[in-house]
Amino acid sequence: MLNGEKCIERPLRWGMIGGGRTGQVGYKHRTAALRDNTAYQLVCGAFDLDAERGKAFGKNLSVDEDRLYADYLTLIAEESQRADGVEVVSIATPNFTHFDITKACLEAGIHVICEKPLFFTVAECDVIAKLASDKGLIVGVTYGFTGHPLVHQMAAMVKRGLLGDIRIVDMQYTHGFNSDDDRHAGEAMKWRTNPATAGPTFVLGDIGTHLYYLSEVVLPELTIDKLLCDRKAFIPSRAPLEDHATVLMHYNNGARGRLWVSSVNAGNMGSQRYRFVGSKASIEWSDTHPDQLIYEVQGQPNQILHHGMPYLEDEALAVDRMGALHTEGLGDSWANIYLWIAQAIDAKQRGDEGFLNSHHYPGIEAGTDGVRWLENCVRSADNGSAWVNFE
Amino acid sequence: MLNGEKCIERPLRWGMIGGGRTGQVGYKHRTAALRDNTAYQLVCGAFDLDAERGKAFGKNLSVDEDRLYADYLTLIAEESQRADGVEVVSIATPNFTHFDITKACLEAGIHVICEKPLFFTVAECDVIAKLASDKGLIVGVTYGFTGHPLVHQMAAMVKRGLLGDIRIVDMQYTHGFNSDDDRHAGEAMKWRTNPATAGPTFVLGDIGTHLYYLSEVVLPELTIDKLLCDRKAFIPSRAPLEDHATVLMHYNNGARGRLWVSSVNAGNMGSQRYRFVGSKASIEWSDTHPDQLIYEVQGQPNQILHHGMPYLEDEALAVDRMGALHTEGLGDSWANIYLWIAQAIDAKQRGDEGFLNSHHYPGIEAGTDGVRWLENCVRSADNGSAWVNFE
Amino acid sequence: MLNGEKCIERPLRWGMIGGGRTGQVGYKHRTAALRDNTAYQLVCGAFDLDAERGKAFGKNLSVDEDRLYADYLTLIAEESQRADGVEVVSIATPNFTHFDITKACLEAGIHVICEKPLFFTVAECDVIAKLASDKGLIVGVTYGFTGHPLVHQMAAMVKRGLLGDIRIVDMQYTHGFNSDDDRHAGEAMKWRTNPATAGPTFVLGDIGTHLYYLSEVVLPELTIDKLLCDRKAFIPSRAPLEDHATVLMHYNNGARGRLWVSSVNAGNMGSQRYRFVGSKASIEWSDTHPDQLIYEVQGQPNQILHHGMPYLEDEALAVDRMGALHTEGLGDSWANIYLWIAQAIDAKQRGDEGFLNSHHYPGIEAGTDGVRWLENCVRSADNGSAWVNFE
Amino acid sequence: MLNGEKCIERPLRWGMIGGGRTGQVGYKHRTAALRDNTAYQLVCGAFDLDAERGKAFGKNLSVDEDRLYADYLTLIAEESQRADGVEVVSIATPNFTHFDITKACLEAGIHVICEKPLFFTVAECDVIAKLASDKGLIVGVTYGFTGHPLVHQMAAMVKRGLLGDIRIVDMQYTHGFNSDDDRHAGEAMKWRTNPATAGPTFVLGDIGTHLYYLSEVVLPELTIDKLLCDRKAFIPSRAPLEDHATVLMHYNNGARGRLWVSSVNAGNMGSQRYRFVGSKASIEWSDTHPDQLIYEVQGQPNQILHHGMPYLEDEALAVDRMGALHTEGLGDSWANIYLWIAQAIDAKQRGDEGFLNSHHYPGIEAGTDGVRWLENCVRSADNGSAWVNFE
Repeated sequence: MLNGEKCIERPLRWGMIGGGRTGQVGYKHRTAALRDNTAYQLVCGAFDLDAERGKAFGKNLSVDEDRLYADYLTLIAEESQRADGVEVVSIATPNFTHFDITKACLEAGIHVICEKPLFFTVAECDVIAKLASDKGLIVGVTYGFTGHPLVHQMAAMVKRGLLGDIRIVDMQYTHGFNSDDDRHAGEAMKWRTNPATAGPTFVLGDIGTHLYYLSEVVLPELTIDKLLCDRKAFIPSRAPLEDHATVLMHYNNGARGRLWVSSVNAGNMGSQRYRFVGSKASIEWSDTHPDQLIYEVQGQPNQILHHGMPYLEDEALAVDRMGALHTEGLGDSWANIYLWIAQAIDAKQRGDEGFLNSHHYPGIEAGTDGVRWLENCVRSADNGSAWVNFE
Repeated sequence: MLNGEKCIERPLRWGMIGGGRTGQVGYKHRTAALRDNTAYQLVCGAFDLDAERGKAFGKNLSVDEDRLYADYLTLIAEESQRADGVEVVSIATPNFTHFDITKACLEAGIHVICEKPLFFTVAECDVIAKLASDKGLIVGVTYGFTGHPLVHQMAAMVKRGLLGDIRIVDMQYTHGFNSDDDRHAGEAMKWRTNPATAGPTFVLGDIGTHLYYLSEVVLPELTIDKLLCDRKAFIPSRAPLEDHATVLMHYNNGARGRLWVSSVNAGNMGSQRYRFVGSKASIEWSDTHPDQLIYEVQGQPNQILHHGMPYLEDEALAVDRMGALHTEGLGDSWANIYLWIAQAIDAKQRGDEGFLNSHHYPGIEAGTDGVRWLENCVRSADNGSAWVNFE
Repeated sequence: MLNGEKCIERPLRWGMIGGGRTGQVGYKHRTAALRDNTAYQLVCGAFDLDAERGKAFGKNLSVDEDRLYADYLTLIAEESQRADGVEVVSIATPNFTHFDITKACLEAGIHVICEKPLFFTVAECDVIAKLASDKGLIVGVTYGFTGHPLVHQMAAMVKRGLLGDIRIVDMQYTHGFNSDDDRHAGEAMKWRTNPATAGPTFVLGDIGTHLYYLSEVVLPELTIDKLLCDRKAFIPSRAPLEDHATVLMHYNNGARGRLWVSSVNAGNMGSQRYRFVGSKASIEWSDTHPDQLIYEVQGQPNQILHHGMPYLEDEALAVDRMGALHTEGLGDSWANIYLWIAQAIDAKQRGDEGFLNSHHYPGIEAGTDGVRWLENCVRSADNGSAWVNFE
Repeated sequence: MLNGEKCIERPLRWGMIGGGRTGQVGYKHRTAALRDNTAYQLVCGAFDLDAERGKAFGKNLSVDEDRLYADYLTLIAEESQRADGVEVVSIATPNFTHFDITKACLEAGIHVICEKPLFFTVAECDVIAKLASDKGLIVGVTYGFTGHPLVHQMAAMVKRGLLGDIRIVDMQYTHGFNSDDDRHAGEAMKWRTNPATAGPTFVLGDIGTHLYYLSEVVLPELTIDKLLCDRKAFIPSRAPLEDHATVLMHYNNGARGRLWVSSVNAGNMGSQRYRFVGSKASIEWSDTHPDQLIYEVQGQPNQILHHGMPYLEDEALAVDRMGALHTEGLGDSWANIYLWIAQAIDAKQRGDEGFLNSHHYPGIEAGTDGVRWLENCVRSADNGSAWVNFE
């Protein structure tokens, strides 16, 4: 179990770009990074396009006033001058800025934690991967749901063969918050539905990449052979981006996948749901009730496993925080993601490649995989929703 | 509410072909037909390929011994001679026999109630439709789940516009009972996985047609423009038939559909699930807990509606049998289907075409629609799981 | 599995007193008795205090017109004259009439199936028990929920020691249909809230006796040592009867019980819920989702058992009707109760006391136990809700 | 919404007594206090009876080594000497030490946050209340579940009359972790089942006080007139303390309450469940799925409300942290409790009695109420589980 004791020698000096007062996303980053004060300490920020509002906000978070910056370029420039300058920066800004900010941070020797979808293209990912490698820096990606202990229970059960051969992957991340048109929508919807600021997808990137990465964590042996994506904007102004998409996948082992993302699933509060079906058994998990995992062995009573219980696999218990009977929230999951990235940064700083080789966290490869999946989805969708070989 | 009082002048004289002791399906027919003794009375049967076993079985059902027949041809021949001969026969036999038996019954002037999938081809359906029309006879199809009151609640809610424009149709009928290979499988699996006896599909016809018909009941305005079916036999011996399939559908109004059928969804006891999403709200129903309907209006608390409650639409209350708080089982649903078919037969006998024009029951059109949908699915699947225009 | 084949040599000639068109209860009796046409056939009735309405109703049920009677005395008198007279009569009338009708039937040599609560006092029960014994007749009681296969699964699991020592019995049967006062209430509420017509209790007798009998079925070894009942009429006009009560029980083995009945649990559609806790494991069942049984072994994943599955105990599978995946409704449960009573009557007619000794059905003892439990509850409640020794 | 921005001028200097590495409880305190770094900063601790282990633990939490103390007396003595000495201390030690430690802290001018049950007797509570009042200090109590936004939604709905008159209070906090005897139990069970260290109750104090306090938050107008407690130790070595208890309550407005606590509810993972029934509607909440609130208006479809949604009452939205669709865990709830106590301490420090008069947090009165309720429970239980007037 995790209990806040330090996992690295000292907390990393951490800053934020974006994530200010007007949105919800910043608090998820802060609550994750600062969960225990033993992995990160918040030392600086450029929280807001509105510089004054951003500074007022940073003061309210107890950040030193002289390390609250008007923009990310100033942050990088000033912090780079300090002996106690920031070591890692989180980027919680609209998609179209991810690449430039990441690149600037890395060039200044600062590790990066970035929101998904990482960038617009795999080509951009490759540029960043090379730069990070050259600089000896880490790029983490906030696939925030994969920190839940029961996600790692699922991975361990698959690994130990409890499901048999994987046959079916069924995934869904839907909500209905964009069922109406965008006349009264806020800023976040404006940039998310514009290809110039959102990139080549809306819901596929915004929520679909969470599904894809989680499936990679649980099913690391599976790769996609071919894929078909059928997407649509039920609100026409969102076209060519989509507010609904279905993706079918054929995997290398013969398994079949289907995935649904939507922000026009009116009234739906069920959010994410995953079902992994094997020749012997299935497992099912939803972030709506993240503390329970359904385990269904064919021909036996269905089982419900609860987080924190001794019967779970070691991998799940190792990352539990609250203990059985006590609900783990999304903040607990994010805190794990941030901790794992901190451990990666610490190892990189120490030059401990052995640790890094066996350490699992959502890094540049995971971010690139997400972008690659999106590229394949778009290629299929734009080709009459036809099957395409996964490239 | 239905309470067993007669809805037609006198019960129809009814017989069964198939549905004997060794399978479960026959009891669903009998419990449905005989629910109230005011719609049907069981007068004869050819229950079993094993004639002696069939006769012993019929005696145990209190059928007169001299009206227990060795086979369907004898049944038709003998009953046709009687002044009090059978008026309607139910067919609960393997798929490949449906056409011949139906045709023989109709030619002898006997109404038919047949299991799904009705026949192998639309061409066969058309032959039967013409024959039934010429003879003035009814062909009913046992889409047994659509008798649930809440199915008709859904149809009424859609009709009254509570969902707004229909956008997404999501349907699933899966179980895991065929997760293992068929070495130890019984007779039923043998004919179901052989194209010669099952027809062009396994799970698509066996369970998928239930999904499709229910969607027709709830969404009568929607038609399919094009469709894509991706099917697979995870147990290779079942090929070319499938034990798993996904179907994507584009509807005439721009709605998108996705449908999943499987008999290798290991451990799954959830069975059928339907979600109909509109621009304002969604409804969701599962036959696992058929007494409740989920109604989700975007931006409002989710609602759970219960069968038998006064707030339901008249269409739902009219076909309720048990009353609120008291579970309606699958038998109650089947009983409604059988009742509606009895009313159709009675109207046909009386020549009351006015009644028939406004009376809803799963008849030859519904059966044909199911077969047509299967033909389109197979055409797509056999064409590399490509999109095909619905014909 | 039960499939409608005859379990007794020929169907019993059966009639109904009460249960007419204006209420829901009669249909539950008819749908149960007539489920398969191999246990009962409906031959006569005095369905309604309004004789004409009752006869019209009976005609609509296909009963011969000359066996539709104006009242129960006439029914008994006329049927007793017939060679093919009624053999067993069901009583679905207000509580205060149960005793007189039962007595008259038995005196005329007719078996009885009666609604709960059976009579007003244990003394009355004893009179009837002696009369039935003297006459060689059966008195069955319609504890309709105890026919569910999973109730018998629970009993079998307890019997086989899977729970260990029984420690806690937690039972609840509540709804909110009487949350408002009775200004607009129907006839049924009028007699149910008047001690002269309902007897000494309202909800305790009306729904609480179901809980108590089911606990007897599952836990036949347990008896109550002492008991405390706290009851209240939240709608004052219902006093001295209660619309809410809590009962605490101390059992002979040291177990503790708590039971809640209410008809003012506003909005509650959950109905019945049972939890039986042992030293090793607990089981939980609700008639809201009667097809699943929760089985919780301490320290292991929780399990959900489904009706009709091969892993169940033989006792559960023997009384299954619909098969796994197919919902059993309340009608299926009632059908089992009626079948078991029919088997008792048949054995009695055949003089087969050996069969009767090992045959389980809700008979006069079960009915008496319920009335005795009510007497103890009222004695406690009327004594300041104090503990009373169970007598 | 809460997003980590400061709610008081500067974070309080905070220390912990107890809550070390060998138990789970300390992390709940730390994760709550340190959630945002704007309410508390951890400056010192005496975490463990094993002084060395406690110091090693504190170092791993990044506490300055010279402020890690061997015991609470040293902590108080040393910190009192410092200009930057600790301002508030949390006590997460066995029950029997709460009083002495609290008293010592208050006498040294240090605010206190203490685990429940607060002390052994109301007399002790009164001593502390007077001392705190004299010293101008706050005593907070960690009723950690009452920080959930939907708890405050319930209180707001009751306040606005949405339930009508409150009639029934039904509460349950049970688990099965102590189903076996204590031969292999750990330290925590040893002191919890010994009256010398646990006080007059086991599960009533350990978990029952959570139920009682939450009901006070939701139903501030209700007080108990009389009460009956029936308790038992199913594992005899735990006597005279209880591992199971039922409490019945009569409230001042005529409402009826029932409450169940148990640690021998084998296999139960459902934990806490609350149902508040009014004349119009009921609400139901469980900490197992804390993000949803069931709202059942009699005669209408049941509703499920989700945290973070705009349709909620302001009181609920004001204390939301994660936003709709994102699970709030127990840590989020605890963080709110700690924040509210910090605001109380800050106001006390500023002499802002106006703020304090309208500020709600679990303080000495709430702690005293819990102990008073326990005293009444024990008085009833020890008097043959008889009704006692609430004193």
